[in-house]
Amino acid sequence: MSRHIAGPEIERLIQLLARLPGLGPRSARRAALHLVKKKEALLEPLGKAFADAAQNVRVCATCGNIDTSDPCTVCCDATRDSGTLIVVEDVSDLWALERVGSVRAAYHVLGGRLSPLDGVGPEDLNIKQLLTRIEAGGVKEVILALNATVEGQTTAHYITDMLSGFDVRITRLAHGVPVGGELDYLDEGTLAAALQARTAL
Amino acid sequence: MSRHIAGPEIERLIQLLARLPGLGPRSARRAALHLVKKKEALLEPLGKAFADAAQNVRVCATCGNIDTSDPCTVCCDATRDSGTLIVVEDVSDLWALERVGSVRAAYHVLGGRLSPLDGVGPEDLNIKQLLTRIEAGGVKEVILALNATVEGQTTAHYITDMLSGFDVRITRLAHGVPVGGELDYLDEGTLAAALQARTAL
Repeated sequence: MSRHIAGPEIERLIQLLARLPGLGPRSARRAALHLVKKKEALLEPLGKAFADAAQNVRVCATCGNIDTSDPCTVCCDATRDSGTLIVVEDVSDLWALERVGSVRAAYHVLGGRLSPLDGVGPEDLNIKQLLTRIEAGGVKEVILALNATVEGQTTAHYITDMLSGFDVRITRLAHGVPVGGELDYLDEGTLAAALQARTAL
Repeated sequence: MSRHIAGPEIERLIQLLARLPGLGPRSARRAALHLVKKKEALLEPLGKAFADAAQNVRVCATCGNIDTSDPCTVCCDATRDSGTLIVVEDVSDLWALERVGSVRAAYHVLGGRLSPLDGVGPEDLNIKQLLTRIEAGGVKEVILALNATVEGQTTAHYITDMLSGFDVRITRLAHGVPVGGELDYLDEGTLAAALQARTAL
């Protein structure tokens, strides 16, 4: 706000809320007002939820996932097939794959992708721990579920090289036409990949 | 999330964040992940900001504004013209008018509008306190900055009736073409009002 029309606590609330992804200055104001109006129902519980999360959040030493326990909820889940390891760049990718729910595998979160321009090298990623897990045995397949970007694919190649000495099957996600997508709107790279990987009907 | 893939503290954070205006389930997940990744920079400060706000938030006994002090920041501002009282439905309207910043007046927040269908009568609004302020003297003009809806205008009429015995000028916001608006897209009611209230060039 240009002038002070609310107390410093509310101004600070707006400032911090505006730093959340998906909230701009306008929606942060709207959210802050909603919060102070619903003190018992929302402001206090959220304050407590924030404090609880801040106290308990940690990085899983096994897979690099961010959770409130270590080992994390996914690593602790005994119903998963620990012989299949899905390598993802980020926790958000793990959450996205879990929403699909079609594979009950273990995960490994790299915490980023190789990016020489941004100064991100192999030692900045959670790759050493990935090798340790595979050396420990039991892993039969590593699914590289990395982004289909140049950096994601560079990272995939690097990991493939590192794992070449191990007796594990290395796979990556298929490229192709998104379900519900129209050919006319697709880029040439995706179309070419979809043609090449065509399947028999 | 369909299955438990994160600890209960994170799941609860997502649930509560999704109840903020402007955040759906998807953006709440994104915000929660952003928060737990930025524990020191965002999660902890926001938790503290929520607790501070929850502890200090109160309704101003003078004007009905929601703030962290009573009297509120606006009522405490000695540079304002206390002879002009802008009556608004909600705190968000007060904030919106303050963003304009063209009038340095005092405010009065009704906390809603008359709505027989929703069971909101005059006694549910902050109208008695408005009369008390005007009886105390010093108010020369009351600007009814209520929404241009049926309920807002009903409320305006009611307040005009209540104030008929006092020696105060009662005004309302002008109707007309929004600045930057195109006539072709405007409703008939607005166009008729704009024609009727036309001004000489």
